[in-house]
Amino acid sequence: MWVITLTTDFGLRDAYVACMKGVILGIAPESRIVDVSHSVSPQDIREAGFLLAAAWPYFPAGTLHVAVVDPGVGTSRRPIAVVTEHGTFIGPDNGIFCPALQAMGRIEPQTGALKGAHGVELTSEDHRLKPTSRTFHGRDIFAPAAGHLATGVPLEHLGGAIDRVTTLDLPGFRRRGRTLEGAVAHIDGFGNVITSIPGRELPPEPVIRIGDATIQGLAESYQDRPLGALVSSGGFLEIAVRNGDAARRLGVRRGDPVEVLEAP
Amino acid sequence: MWVITLTTDFGLRDAYVACMKGVILGIAPESRIVDVSHSVSPQDIREAGFLLAAAWPYFPAGTLHVAVVDPGVGTSRRPIAVVTEHGTFIGPDNGIFCPALQAMGRIEPQTGALKGAHGVELTSEDHRLKPTSRTFHGRDIFAPAAGHLATGVPLEHLGGAIDRVTTLDLPGFRRRGRTLEGAVAHIDGFGNVITSIPGRELPPEPVIRIGDATIQGLAESYQDRPLGALVSSGGFLEIAVRNGDAARRLGVRRGDPVEVLEAP
Amino acid sequence: MWVITLTTDFGLRDAYVACMKGVILGIAPESRIVDVSHSVSPQDIREAGFLLAAAWPYFPAGTLHVAVVDPGVGTSRRPIAVVTEHGTFIGPDNGIFCPALQAMGRIEPQTGALKGAHGVELTSEDHRLKPTSRTFHGRDIFAPAAGHLATGVPLEHLGGAIDRVTTLDLPGFRRRGRTLEGAVAHIDGFGNVITSIPGRELPPEPVIRIGDATIQGLAESYQDRPLGALVSSGGFLEIAVRNGDAARRLGVRRGDPVEVLEAP
Repeated sequence: MWVITLTTDFGLRDAYVACMKGVILGIAPESRIVDVSHSVSPQDIREAGFLLAAAWPYFPAGTLHVAVVDPGVGTSRRPIAVVTEHGTFIGPDNGIFCPALQAMGRIEPQTGALKGAHGVELTSEDHRLKPTSRTFHGRDIFAPAAGHLATGVPLEHLGGAIDRVTTLDLPGFRRRGRTLEGAVAHIDGFGNVITSIPGRELPPEPVIRIGDATIQGLAESYQDRPLGALVSSGGFLEIAVRNGDAARRLGVRRGDPVEVLEAP
Repeated sequence: MWVITLTTDFGLRDAYVACMKGVILGIAPESRIVDVSHSVSPQDIREAGFLLAAAWPYFPAGTLHVAVVDPGVGTSRRPIAVVTEHGTFIGPDNGIFCPALQAMGRIEPQTGALKGAHGVELTSEDHRLKPTSRTFHGRDIFAPAAGHLATGVPLEHLGGAIDRVTTLDLPGFRRRGRTLEGAVAHIDGFGNVITSIPGRELPPEPVIRIGDATIQGLAESYQDRPLGALVSSGGFLEIAVRNGDAARRLGVRRGDPVEVLEAP
Repeated sequence: MWVITLTTDFGLRDAYVACMKGVILGIAPESRIVDVSHSVSPQDIREAGFLLAAAWPYFPAGTLHVAVVDPGVGTSRRPIAVVTEHGTFIGPDNGIFCPALQAMGRIEPQTGALKGAHGVELTSEDHRLKPTSRTFHGRDIFAPAAGHLATGVPLEHLGGAIDRVTTLDLPGFRRRGRTLEGAVAHIDGFGNVITSIPGRELPPEPVIRIGDATIQGLAESYQDRPLGALVSSGGFLEIAVRNGDAARRLGVRRGDPVEVLEAP
């Protein structure tokens, strides 16, 4: 029994996701397939990477994570699989796995060199659907790779080893004197604003500047304050509006700056 | 093999639902997880309660129903599990289970006292994810509880017994002379208007007043009439427009009044 | 272990899909249920037919495909099941299976006569949910039929044999001199325009006229050109805009004409 997760921008109207599941179940009938999201904004590699980085810590270590946000499908971008002790990642080498691999310390942030992880380029013709389309590698390359790995095919049968993967310039945080500087990393479906500043870096009495607002201190729950800051379920500084949409209230978008000062 | 259903307002864009599924499969790999809905309107406890009350009768009796519409997460509202002979309900004690438990006669409508059902407050630290966040009990408390119950952990290991749950003031119906008075209980994705008046209470030739319309008699099918009344698949008076949106046509919203008279 | 797919227009807000899954798992606990789509446009039999025809080739041959876009529920339209060597199709006899059965050569396009396929009308009272509603045969007739077939009940126990099914007037293609004439068959969630012209019929250097555009030659990938034509993952001529919405750019809708000429 293997768990296989899927993260795509294919949406839920079409049959694309179902085709991938059919291919997987045809090869590995006992696998359990879990959707992470198929509503990633079209071609938004960063959003998919954020979601996968949010999800993997809660899955069994042997889980196969397939992610297909793939504007470069059919070009020279490589199809890859990367095995770590926390899970295996299968998809295009376009940076989509960078947030997850960086969070688990399995790549050098600057170079993308793998550390304590094994990667291959998925070149094996024997482990693809035939004919292989130029436009749907999710179905023709990535789903079969997941299926074969789930049935016990060794990683090295799927292609030649790689030693680095493509990275993204992820929103991070830095200290400038007594100020922490970060950015909006994600806006969730409730409108909650999740930043790139880890909760463990926050001072005891933070003063947060974001959009047109200044927020004093941390809230205890979403109900605590009309506009509150708290540590998100993923461990980062989050801004929320009680029963409302914080991103709209603050007028912020992904990438916008966030500052945290220590109360004087 | 246990079936576990999920009902939330988390939406399908984010990884929140997937995190819950990962936690469940990590504890109870053989469980079958079924989504009831993740598109409940944000913080709409009544809507979630309606959907769960519509779903549970069609699931095996041993099914574990996890529902997380939880605006009070992190406050003093209790996390609970209630076992009945028709299924087990796991989530916040905010009224979300009231429609299901009331329909199966397992609570006193006024007091919320449990009748022929066993409940606990989910206080066991050993059956939570650690660290336990203040903002995502779906992942940290309810999913683990479902997983542990699915693997056979006895209910009483999860916390101390409770004898009542929070209730909602649900739309009902009453007789006033020859008139039945009820309300719009739910508007479904087609725009069909489902009322709180049970089909079995209807007179042989009902005259229905709702919004700006008066409808004579019952239709045999959705195709039967341009604007028709029929008994819904859940057993309640329903108003539908042939291949159209009845709620928009009638201009009604949840809670609006519905009257049924007997044809003279 | 049987795979059962579901294709409906029930949407993801309501509990309708979950009710069907509960019924299936109650009868056939070991079945694997895969959603093809529940976001078919309301009452759009053609769209559901297109999606199912796109999905079935990627599922194991024994898969049970349940499709419920059923504006005629409760009328005289027949509930049916059709078994082929590529899969079994269960739903209303309203043409929804026509695209799949025609693509696999299992019906006469004009008459709907079955060829090398066995069909029944689902009349057996013993294999329905009781009471059987007039408005939700997905739950009360089709889900039970799938569950019973998955547990090994012979097809002929479910009802009397039928020898033809309802057909749709599907968009095809024809040659007129050196010109191929077809139509827009589907617009996917990215806005890609999928036509009814098979890729194998295209001349080496096609000139494509669609909406207000003329497109010269075929692209190699979605990135290749700002507005490109290519062979879709399903094998048909497709028009796409790089990282954009081709249907909006071209101003086309399903059914609009497409012409392919040979470059002079």
